Amino acid sequence: MAPQYSPMKVEFINPFVTAAVTVFRTMLMCELTRGQIQLKEHSQPDHEISGVIGLSGRAVGTVVLSISREVAISATEAMLGERPDGLNADVVDAIGEVTNMIGGSAKAELEQFAMTLSLPNVISGKNHTVAFPSGATPISIPFTCEWGSVCLDVGLCEVMEPVPT
Amino acid sequence: MAPQYSPMKVEFINPFVTAAVTVFRTMLMCELTRGQIQLKEHSQPDHEISGVIGLSGRAVGTVVLSISREVAISATEAMLGERPDGLNADVVDAIGEVTNMIGGSAKAELEQFAMTLSLPNVISGKNHTVAFPSGATPISIPFTCEWGSVCLDVGLCEVMEPVPT
Repeated sequence: MAPQYSPMKVEFINPFVTAAVTVFRTMLMCELTRGQIQLKEHSQPDHEISGVIGLSGRAVGTVVLSISREVAISATEAMLGERPDGLNADVVDAIGEVTNMIGGSAKAELEQFAMTLSLPNVISGKNHTVAFPSGATPISIPFTCEWGSVCLDVGLCEVMEPVPT
Repeated sequence: MAPQYSPMKVEFINPFVTAAVTVFRTMLMCELTRGQIQLKEHSQPDHEISGVIGLSGRAVGTVVLSISREVAISATEAMLGERPDGLNADVVDAIGEVTNMIGGSAKAELEQFAMTLSLPNVISGKNHTVAFPSGATPISIPFTCEWGSVCLDVGLCEVMEPVPT
């Protein structure tokens, strides 16, 4: 039997906002300014690069960090001290690690759900979209920073039944 | 401290091969024929649609089901009994569910790792790539079926330390 999911709760959001701001500040020396949070009800194309990581436990979900090529390259430069030529393996590892740290920091604040993280994947491609199941509409948290715009989509649901063991 | 991961093990592969064949046969009435398994060391563009789901527990990883538009539409038609007009929400839900069932069936065979599944995401976009961290090279399992080609990429690593709780 497929699990039944609860709707996304507002209480789930703040830990992800705080995690994104903290990870960008401490890992990348970059200040994020948050825009208007909204439900992401339609699949519009994301930025050219998306870092995706899954969370599972007593809640299940996904975090998608969607950024432009310029933000991806500048973030990698901030981490490695050297500007990559293009969207190479260094960029994949850097954006995967930023996504992993945002997920890890948020899950620590949501410890009542005893979640663990999957491996991060990094999607690249112009006009790609990262869609969620129709029962799990994500909340979209837009940010701006000196390098451009950043968006964090979070879809997280409590597992109602069966509870995974 | 970031977790350290073991290399991908060959023993991890068979449960995913069996899961893909079984899910396509039972859910979609479609026979998959397996091709040559290989390490996916370079990021070449995937098919137009990718279903992605994370696994975590005492092993962590991701399963990526990469399929053409034609396979996605035919698979959705097989599940719903009606052919979708294009890559709409029905296709997202159908491919997300197929990916979820492949991950769920494989994790049941790997119960010693006590893994749970995240939410599936469905990526669409021509020429997108789904890259893994450089320390976690996935194994790529190609299949063919009457609708076209299907590829399952599996990156799964035992967590060495710290063990997640």
